[in-house]
Amino acid sequence: MVKYTLFYMKINGRAGGIRLMLDYLKVPFEDKTFERSEWPTVKPTTPFGQVPVLYVDDDKLVLPETLAIYRYLAAKHGAIPDSLEDQALCDAYADHVQDYMSKLVLFVYAVIHQKPKERILEYREESLKFLQERLFPDLQKQLEKNGTGWMVGDKPTWLDFFVADVVDNHLYWKEENGDEVPEKILNHHEKVFSLPGLEKRLEERKTLFPPKDMFKF
Amino acid sequence: MVKYTLFYMKINGRAGGIRLMLDYLKVPFEDKTFERSEWPTVKPTTPFGQVPVLYVDDDKLVLPETLAIYRYLAAKHGAIPDSLEDQALCDAYADHVQDYMSKLVLFVYAVIHQKPKERILEYREESLKFLQERLFPDLQKQLEKNGTGWMVGDKPTWLDFFVADVVDNHLYWKEENGDEVPEKILNHHEKVFSLPGLEKRLEERKTLFPPKDMFKF
Repeated sequence: MVKYTLFYMKINGRAGGIRLMLDYLKVPFEDKTFERSEWPTVKPTTPFGQVPVLYVDDDKLVLPETLAIYRYLAAKHGAIPDSLEDQALCDAYADHVQDYMSKLVLFVYAVIHQKPKERILEYREESLKFLQERLFPDLQKQLEKNGTGWMVGDKPTWLDFFVADVVDNHLYWKEENGDEVPEKILNHHEKVFSLPGLEKRLEERKTLFPPKDMFKF
Repeated sequence: MVKYTLFYMKINGRAGGIRLMLDYLKVPFEDKTFERSEWPTVKPTTPFGQVPVLYVDDDKLVLPETLAIYRYLAAKHGAIPDSLEDQALCDAYADHVQDYMSKLVLFVYAVIHQKPKERILEYREESLKFLQERLFPDLQKQLEKNGTGWMVGDKPTWLDFFVADVVDNHLYWKEENGDEVPEKILNHHEKVFSLPGLEKRLEERKTLFPPKDMFKF
């Protein structure tokens, strides 16, 4: 049997959705985590100076980059659409989410590195603007068009786990009475998180968000 | 026969490498371009408010996002590795290049939107730092490890066209006596641009760079 090790920080972050997908697919893996304080020591040991990294049979395949990990595991274990056309749509929507993530990361890093407050606010506004004016409407439109409750086709794919994970993170961090999340996207999040096999991981997940006051600035 | 229309601005930008790949694969396509000044009118007609977009048989498949377009066309026409492991490595390295692009885009937009000079310089420095300290060494290491002259495996894949295109853009824009490009990466660029079938497109390509003084600030 193939031995998978998923290596990431002891938070949900970018690995939360991968963990959920693997549980749903009943694929055993070692969930190897490290503390945020260990990052400077860990960073040079990773291929791109980034996590998550997937190790397949120790170092037979050492795979960085979140989406590459999702896609590979999904293709191996049945969470990828059958047609090249639907696979391409998964790729496109996932990269659209990544466009949002690259804006969000600017905000997060600005907080962590204590940039001036006006810069932090500028980055927060830009990522929220993209989310509200671009990403959410585009995901909502696709869910309406597809009509099965899943992002693409009529069964869960890796894209569903990726999207639901990012939406769940947003729901955790968003301010009360803050921006609204469109209904179809909330339904999609609920549908993914209600899949069988996720129960234990969802309990653990609650403990793996950083404290909310971390992003007070 | 499938009818492909690649829709992008009348520049190399993100579509240059896709055009080269299609020529190499002898896949006919309509190269539909628009002028930069038309962008405000064009933007709302695209799925994500972004280009390039690939239209397959008019609107049978409307595919945004550069890497999704590369991967789909490559999978259809024989420029994708055979094994899922090598496909995953292609994905990972391409996303690593995208990480650089997302930093470069901050610099480019800051110039276009006439942000304060110190911000422009900060973004330029950050993108160059990532290129020199992270992306180039990682690409160089992979070329050494693979040893065939191609990024992954022993034949050209979509990743080769993507990487060579980004390197070519960098070579166009970089200042004389500016930062060095590692030798194996230069050899790789040369190897891709010397593939048969690209001759006509490479002539056209020379005319599709914006004027160099565009990024004087």
